[in-house]
Amino acid sequence: MNQQYPSLLLERAVEEFSKLPGIGRKTAMRLVLHLLRQDASTVESFGNSIITLKHEVKYCKVCHNISDTDICQICTNAQRDHSVVCVVENVRDVMAVEATQQYHGLYHVLGGVISPMDGIGPGDLQIESLVQRVAKGGIDEVILALSTTMEGDTTNFYIYRKLENMNIKLSVIARGISVGDELEYADEITLGRSIINRTLFTGSI
Amino acid sequence: MNQQYPSLLLERAVEEFSKLPGIGRKTAMRLVLHLLRQDASTVESFGNSIITLKHEVKYCKVCHNISDTDICQICTNAQRDHSVVCVVENVRDVMAVEATQQYHGLYHVLGGVISPMDGIGPGDLQIESLVQRVAKGGIDEVILALSTTMEGDTTNFYIYRKLENMNIKLSVIARGISVGDELEYADEITLGRSIINRTLFTGSI
Repeated sequence: MNQQYPSLLLERAVEEFSKLPGIGRKTAMRLVLHLLRQDASTVESFGNSIITLKHEVKYCKVCHNISDTDICQICTNAQRDHSVVCVVENVRDVMAVEATQQYHGLYHVLGGVISPMDGIGPGDLQIESLVQRVAKGGIDEVILALSTTMEGDTTNFYIYRKLENMNIKLSVIARGISVGDELEYADEITLGRSIINRTLFTGSI
Repeated sequence: MNQQYPSLLLERAVEEFSKLPGIGRKTAMRLVLHLLRQDASTVESFGNSIITLKHEVKYCKVCHNISDTDICQICTNAQRDHSVVCVVENVRDVMAVEATQQYHGLYHVLGGVISPMDGIGPGDLQIESLVQRVAKGGIDEVILALSTTMEGDTTNFYIYRKLENMNIKLSVIARGISVGDELEYADEITLGRSIINRTLFTGSI
């Protein structure tokens, strides 16, 4: 159904919002009308926040994470273990690992995973810079923390082939039953891996 | 959980997006990172579309609908029936009624409904201008097409009291069982009203 907008400006704003992932035309309309009810300074603050981010954002020259400075706060933090590098897809994954408070090493943000279907090859990702970073020395372990998908596995294997002859430990995050999950609902591949990769039980997990 | 953003600019943009209704922090992050992957002109086009709308939007001086001109396209359309006015809450409702292609009169956009809980009184809505519009003459019928909620009913009654002594027909949209609904799942008030307001069946609906 082709809806007739009462205003071209309104239509243009709704069009722009409905280009966002997961935002349909109805939701876009709701968001635009919500903003229209706010005062001008709020709307300017909203619109300019994303424009400013796009223009001024930096990517850490070491780990490629989003940063306000040339080298990010994690890479410059002397308290962290600079001998361990955790390879992740994007900034959201950095934040997810940081939120666990279980990791104190550095990161390397690939910017995605190898996905021929989406036209993303190794050259589109920060893989070569990872290889150079390891080649420079000082890194003992690289932890692969990519999605447990076909694309993630492909990327894991590609990185493995690139790093296998370098004298480092290469590990991958554990795959198994999620905490709180019931066995009967787990898929058989996950359950199978969780049995193969079982860990010694010493009274507590 | 207080997540640590790697960049203040990123944090600010995510904050702005998560102020939108129905957009949580995770979704805001996803939207911001999506925009960050687009080129600068796309991001500017997005940010400026809402700023431009806010600065340049007009409200029709007759019906108060959003418009690019002082008087909107519906109010200036000589093909439409200027003797009937449909009272709605907002521009979305205008578009919803227009999409039915069953109505060819004019509109009056209140800008909401009376809602003491939200601090919205009659003075915050375009009710006085509706009364003046009817008082000017030339209008035979006012159709109330507000939400079928307590607030909508309160507003209907308030408008009824304002217009009852003017020589016009005041009607309200039919309430009944939605097309496609099954009776057993309808609430009793709706079903009761649909029986009271039954229409003569002449072989087809």
